[in-house]
Amino acid sequence: MKDFAFTGGRPDPNTFPTEALIEASTKALRNLGGQLVNYPGESGYRGLRELASMRFEGREGVPLPIDNTSITSGSMQALDLTLGTFIQPGDTVLTEEYTYSGTLGIMRHLQANIVGIPMDYIDGMNMDALEDKLKELKRQNVTPAMIYTTSNHQNPTGAILSLKRRHRMLELAEEYDTLIVEDDCYGDIDFVPNPTPASLFKLDESNRVIFIATFSKILGAGVRQGYFVAKQPYYDMIHQNRWDGGTSALASAIVAEFFKENLEAHLETTNNAVGAKCKAVIDTLEEHVSDICTWTKPRGGLFLWIDLPESTDMKKLNALASAKGVGYSNGSAFHYAGEPVKAIRLAYAYCNIEDIPEGITYLAEAIRDAQVATVDVAAAD
Amino acid sequence: MKDFAFTGGRPDPNTFPTEALIEASTKALRNLGGQLVNYPGESGYRGLRELASMRFEGREGVPLPIDNTSITSGSMQALDLTLGTFIQPGDTVLTEEYTYSGTLGIMRHLQANIVGIPMDYIDGMNMDALEDKLKELKRQNVTPAMIYTTSNHQNPTGAILSLKRRHRMLELAEEYDTLIVEDDCYGDIDFVPNPTPASLFKLDESNRVIFIATFSKILGAGVRQGYFVAKQPYYDMIHQNRWDGGTSALASAIVAEFFKENLEAHLETTNNAVGAKCKAVIDTLEEHVSDICTWTKPRGGLFLWIDLPESTDMKKLNALASAKGVGYSNGSAFHYAGEPVKAIRLAYAYCNIEDIPEGITYLAEAIRDAQVATVDVAAAD
Repeated sequence: MKDFAFTGGRPDPNTFPTEALIEASTKALRNLGGQLVNYPGESGYRGLRELASMRFEGREGVPLPIDNTSITSGSMQALDLTLGTFIQPGDTVLTEEYTYSGTLGIMRHLQANIVGIPMDYIDGMNMDALEDKLKELKRQNVTPAMIYTTSNHQNPTGAILSLKRRHRMLELAEEYDTLIVEDDCYGDIDFVPNPTPASLFKLDESNRVIFIATFSKILGAGVRQGYFVAKQPYYDMIHQNRWDGGTSALASAIVAEFFKENLEAHLETTNNAVGAKCKAVIDTLEEHVSDICTWTKPRGGLFLWIDLPESTDMKKLNALASAKGVGYSNGSAFHYAGEPVKAIRLAYAYCNIEDIPEGITYLAEAIRDAQVATVDVAAAD
Repeated sequence: MKDFAFTGGRPDPNTFPTEALIEASTKALRNLGGQLVNYPGESGYRGLRELASMRFEGREGVPLPIDNTSITSGSMQALDLTLGTFIQPGDTVLTEEYTYSGTLGIMRHLQANIVGIPMDYIDGMNMDALEDKLKELKRQNVTPAMIYTTSNHQNPTGAILSLKRRHRMLELAEEYDTLIVEDDCYGDIDFVPNPTPASLFKLDESNRVIFIATFSKILGAGVRQGYFVAKQPYYDMIHQNRWDGGTSALASAIVAEFFKENLEAHLETTNNAVGAKCKAVIDTLEEHVSDICTWTKPRGGLFLWIDLPESTDMKKLNALASAKGVGYSNGSAFHYAGEPVKAIRLAYAYCNIEDIPEGITYLAEAIRDAQVATVDVAAAD
């Protein structure tokens, strides 16, 4: 049976640049040689920090502060270190109502009180709702440890926090004295040429934003090369919480060497491929389930979110889809409180494009076959 | 000014196998290619776990359980994860009186009550002293969270825990119901052909030992490829504490590919080189300070420990040595309670062998010039 894997935030395997990485690793190893006996240092390989800075400058017009940038094992370790530094058990954290399951896992592990803020799938977190919640918390004498947001191509919805909302979020963070953790791990995956709004990190004027990004999402999750950027005192605070001896300089140097030469060309190649896959998913959904489902139409990132009819039996859907080899992620995994949700997330970059119509057709059939006459539906009849 | 760096646990840069690693990275990338878009998994790249298992089998006659082996960012992250899982604030941990400063750093960060057990520089931790301490703790109703030990080529002293003591430590762990964390990160660095005693992990019959080792110490700290081995339930407990998305499969695959072909040959080359450096340090010390100092004569590992006269002014020594470009580590960094110690640690693998006589001669002069007439000495006169 074929495997239609729409699970997991993995980049496109078909545009993985094997030969160029071989060239890059040859160069990197010849450059560094015996220097690799040294520890990378807690901040990691400088060449990759410089690359992160240049990349940011290309997008945002200003460089990242290299001495405040620290390489991590993907953006996941950056999250682990940052959240672990600023969240004490019982602390309140605010996030989009639907957000990355891995972040929720860390927050739960840290025993945070997670508060989900309503959002829409286009412009992200609702700032009126955020303000209301901050007011309510203030009345209870609660200062949240942070607002966590995925500003670009949000996981799982693909929402992009609008510029207006970014400004307002910064104002609210200032007014209510909290931090913002901006997870921009999907920022580089864009299918259209017009840029996303300026980052919260760039817009920030009162040192309230910790910025997290990664090279793994445009290359491979297996390379594990993310980073965080935090001004002082936050940078040192996070590093006091770091005890891994730093991220592999071998891997960092290879990734840096590759992107130094190939960033723009690789982005064009892989983003075109991923965008085409996204379109193939949308076209097939359109053909088969536009009468009963709605879904997001992301302009970037790796994920598409499908709202299913209320009458969907989620267990049955899972069984039917699995039987056809179709994998997806259950919506509840992304709900801040893990509540059951009649929605699923599709990750579209991994599956071969020629298999997408077949896989999504199976999924559409499974969605139809998973509809049940609920009591409510029966009553309405 | 020349730099005589006897600091930091770094392997020999002169035998770093640059060209063989280029070959290995070419093979690894061609084998894996687009598979690198996948997450490594929490346990990490299987090929490196298999290699760790085979290596253990070569030394100990039995393989490591691959499904209980997890790749980490050097042995440091293995320590961080293991200690973080089993130490709660206020918990008591037992270790050699002198031990790795990084481990002490993690233990202090975790707010452990660190108890140092007397040791000798040949056979390691004193088991009578360990038993006395365990008895005393039991009277106080304290069950230690763990005994931490570097069984082979101990950092900083080079001691090797004798087989008899290993058996007794296991009996005591059983009797007093505690875990043993066996840090074997230096096990592969041996200058003599006769093997070190069987590991505590192998000898253990009651599932009380977590084993930590690394490939970084025989290749480069910059590659960050260590691992821990823990049977259940400990393996899952440690992984519940792990949120980094796994260790770079890119780096793991390169290191695995290299060692698959070159382990024995590389060990012979690099251990011969490091052993010669160790001998050069000892010969020069012998020539210059044998009347006032004693030092360990390690048969492996990266470190040599010098006991200095009580009349040494440690600050003056540091200033005098620094002025000549000689770096070493202060003994107090390795004392479990950070107490001032008239001793220093030399890491001998990094410095060029032709520079060692000059550097150690400067150090010897600095030691002589840092002697002061203390009140005690004056009184004795």
